[in-house]
Amino acid sequence: MSIQRIQPGVRLSKAVVHGNLVYLAGQVADKTAGKSVAEQTAEILDIIDALLAEAGTDKSKVLTVNIWLTDITKWAEMNSVWEKWVVPGQTPARATVQAVLASPANNVEIMLTAAK
Amino acid sequence: MSIQRIQPGVRLSKAVVHGNLVYLAGQVADKTAGKSVAEQTAEILDIIDALLAEAGTDKSKVLTVNIWLTDITKWAEMNSVWEKWVVPGQTPARATVQAVLASPANNVEIMLTAAK
Amino acid sequence: MSIQRIQPGVRLSKAVVHGNLVYLAGQVADKTAGKSVAEQTAEILDIIDALLAEAGTDKSKVLTVNIWLTDITKWAEMNSVWEKWVVPGQTPARATVQAVLASPANNVEIMLTAAK
Repeated sequence: MSIQRIQPGVRLSKAVVHGNLVYLAGQVADKTAGKSVAEQTAEILDIIDALLAEAGTDKSKVLTVNIWLTDITKWAEMNSVWEKWVVPGQTPARATVQAVLASPANNVEIMLTAAK
Repeated sequence: MSIQRIQPGVRLSKAVVHGNLVYLAGQVADKTAGKSVAEQTAEILDIIDALLAEAGTDKSKVLTVNIWLTDITKWAEMNSVWEKWVVPGQTPARATVQAVLASPANNVEIMLTAAK
Repeated sequence: MSIQRIQPGVRLSKAVVHGNLVYLAGQVADKTAGKSVAEQTAEILDIIDALLAEAGTDKSKVLTVNIWLTDITKWAEMNSVWEKWVVPGQTPARATVQAVLASPANNVEIMLTAAK
């Protein structure tokens, strides 16, 4: 079964497709780095939509998700954006915990696996 | 390949079945929230048994597990319950790290993938 | 589809093979515990190479990776070793966050899923 790497870089690929599974790298905000958790979450979900499209799938097929917040008290703020993004009735498994991220300007990171 | 969502909610499903893989959402204690790590772990493993059954599988087929503890010094206490639960010779891959969780009353969270 | 467990212990297996997917447990340094992040990372990647070989695969087929650092400011130090290890053009999806680990002598933990 072949492995397709999407936007491969020196240390990671933005996504990896293996059979009917698509693994996305942890995504953080770029343009909205340093802005609110809601803004960062919205940008990350846009990035994820684009990567899923490049992998030949979409958000209705997300299977499992890990979310890291640098401040877990922003959980509701992140969810307010998340809940508008997910497809009703087709929500993934998910876990959200607090963690310090690689850049202080990033306060949300989302990593997921989808079917295609 | 179809995707079956178990107990889908507005932001996540308790479990997602895709082909012969079952992805559980991160599970935390409900009745024993605020109680000891051993009690919370026991309740979480009961919840997981029920979800695995609903997905048509069981704990002998767990493949990989992530555990988060709000206080990593409770590692041995969590393991004392965990080791009684797993099926000898059929233990999963696993990683356990410390993280602050969404609710202060939850001190253990367990997320796993199983075969079916 | 059969499940093969590699080095099964009382609480976890070092790796689990299911179909064409290989799940490794979170790996930490042993001989270099307490030494630099670069040294620990190098040892962990050696351990991972051995486990992947035992599972019948290799680092060119790694799909997705989670890395935890006890001090995220060591991110570049870890990456300097990581980037020499990965196969150019075949890098996996990856997320790296900060977390306290089970033993204070361990400052890096790496968990991954590979194809075989």
